[in-house]
Amino acid sequence: MPQVGVVGYGTIGKRVADAVAAQPDMSVVGVAKTSPNFEAATARERGYDLYAANGRDAFARAGVPVDGEVEDLVVESDVVVDATPAGVGAAYRDLYEAHGVPAIYQGGEAADTAPVSFVARANYDEAVGADAVRVVSCNTTGLSRLFAVLDEAVGVERARVTLVRRGADPGQTGSGPIDDILPSTRVPSHHGPDVQTVLPHVEVDTMAVKVPATLMHVQTVNCTLASDTDADAIRDALAGESRVLSIPPWLGVDGAGKLKSFAADLGRPRGDLPENCVWAESVTVSDRECYLVQAIHQESIVVPENVDAIRAVTGAASAAESVARTDETLGLGGPLPLAALLAGEAGR
Amino acid sequence: MPQVGVVGYGTIGKRVADAVAAQPDMSVVGVAKTSPNFEAATARERGYDLYAANGRDAFARAGVPVDGEVEDLVVESDVVVDATPAGVGAAYRDLYEAHGVPAIYQGGEAADTAPVSFVARANYDEAVGADAVRVVSCNTTGLSRLFAVLDEAVGVERARVTLVRRGADPGQTGSGPIDDILPSTRVPSHHGPDVQTVLPHVEVDTMAVKVPATLMHVQTVNCTLASDTDADAIRDALAGESRVLSIPPWLGVDGAGKLKSFAADLGRPRGDLPENCVWAESVTVSDRECYLVQAIHQESIVVPENVDAIRAVTGAASAAESVARTDETLGLGGPLPLAALLAGEAGR
Repeated sequence: MPQVGVVGYGTIGKRVADAVAAQPDMSVVGVAKTSPNFEAATARERGYDLYAANGRDAFARAGVPVDGEVEDLVVESDVVVDATPAGVGAAYRDLYEAHGVPAIYQGGEAADTAPVSFVARANYDEAVGADAVRVVSCNTTGLSRLFAVLDEAVGVERARVTLVRRGADPGQTGSGPIDDILPSTRVPSHHGPDVQTVLPHVEVDTMAVKVPATLMHVQTVNCTLASDTDADAIRDALAGESRVLSIPPWLGVDGAGKLKSFAADLGRPRGDLPENCVWAESVTVSDRECYLVQAIHQESIVVPENVDAIRAVTGAASAAESVARTDETLGLGGPLPLAALLAGEAGR
Repeated sequence: MPQVGVVGYGTIGKRVADAVAAQPDMSVVGVAKTSPNFEAATARERGYDLYAANGRDAFARAGVPVDGEVEDLVVESDVVVDATPAGVGAAYRDLYEAHGVPAIYQGGEAADTAPVSFVARANYDEAVGADAVRVVSCNTTGLSRLFAVLDEAVGVERARVTLVRRGADPGQTGSGPIDDILPSTRVPSHHGPDVQTVLPHVEVDTMAVKVPATLMHVQTVNCTLASDTDADAIRDALAGESRVLSIPPWLGVDGAGKLKSFAADLGRPRGDLPENCVWAESVTVSDRECYLVQAIHQESIVVPENVDAIRAVTGAASAAESVARTDETLGLGGPLPLAALLAGEAGR
């Protein structure tokens, strides 16, 4: 059973650690963190061995005991999930490679940090046995899942997406904007090419604006489909996906705030929503032009992908087996509260 | 010289009154308002005759003198600009018609409130001599101006736009959202058909999301062009427009906040920006697919259109004459501070 080290224990790392701990076929050997803060305190509380990522001094001053430093964790690990801030993962690459430990990087790293950019629904098999994998960013993961489904169902000739990006995560108290709308003047934005690291044959142009919200991204999506179909066929294709939630109108969910409240009411850990959240009534098709709106929870959407990436690099399971196991343990899709609640209504 | 009555003296009405007062060929006969608030106080301060729109009692209690009621204002007017809240204009239509006074309605009214929906750049001539005109909404005005130019220059085969809408105007303190992104699940949204009330031959689909910002709307625009061209040709076409500001990168204007600060620094009345504000570097063209981002100041973009609509219904000037006169008096385009500052840099 692979021992997984989690390097970087912030927004993504702490969620990945909990998700790994919930799996029957892998375990958390420890987590590494730069500074002793509320997350470090919680890591100990949850029983994870804690390793200092930037020297032990700050931990000693705070009185938080550590079990070693990053290299000690890497030595103990069969696989490392690197959930450090963008760019830091690449700096750790030599360390992981020196110990021959396969690494799962996040989407903040450059695409060439790992031989495979990964979204389970799109290209699991490419990552099987790889030395390193990059789980792509939250927006790219959401788009790749969606286009993998649509491309399989009807073919996507060209996609055009506007990313209405949350300005910061709830805990990033120093980031803006406040009361402003900041477009990326680089058009198309880098997200389209990033989707193509996972789905090279899907033509997708993206534009991005940043807004004063913290809860989720919202993506407005247009696809010119390769063949004609209707909205119900698209809804049916999406309803069959365990990592897509089709939000029916009767839920009264009008935005990210109610989506997050819904997840919290359901008892989801941290109120997370690792699924693409598609407003079912927004799905329209006319003359091969498909439109829809989906929300992406930037803090959690990549969590199941990290778990699947661990199984892929260790060759522990097929794509279907891994996704099913991850979904069951994390409560995504299947005969679980949310899916059951939406069953029969999903997509309508 | 036409005497113009302004019914409704809120965000739009007060700006239209000032714009009309600045014209050499029309004058403000008075303004009507429902309640005595800071805007009513300012109207008197600016020397406008003030008419009570919903009885005189509230004004009497506040000690604000009025010169009559709405009907008295209509009787004195050669043209009425109705800048009342959405839906109220239609309720006043009988009054205007009973007195045979041509009316200019705003975009909150249904398209069938007036025989012509109006954007000067697109269809001035259709409004010449009309009994009533509807100046379309801020988002629709911005899109119609843009597509009128692009369609003339290269032809627009199909346009797809995401409207990132400000949640409320700065003074609308009871409106949201706060920290949320609210998509319109009606897809495409009503804005596309509204553009077609002005430019019936332009195929445009729109999606809309509402965000916690008050300053301006931001529109991400995709057009499939009818013929191939390059980004410079599009920038040149836009640079020739007096009601489009091409924002070059060296200004360092990254969003609505700095655009509004720029307008305020230039001494624009109320810090207004009645032009489409297009980020020049966002203009890209590849394989007939054109992308750009523009910001729309919802409080002022329709102001020059209202002035032009007055000239159209009174038959006082041709489109070119009216637009030139409006622009000169309001400081839009031409050899004026902003245009001069951007001259040579516009669009680069």
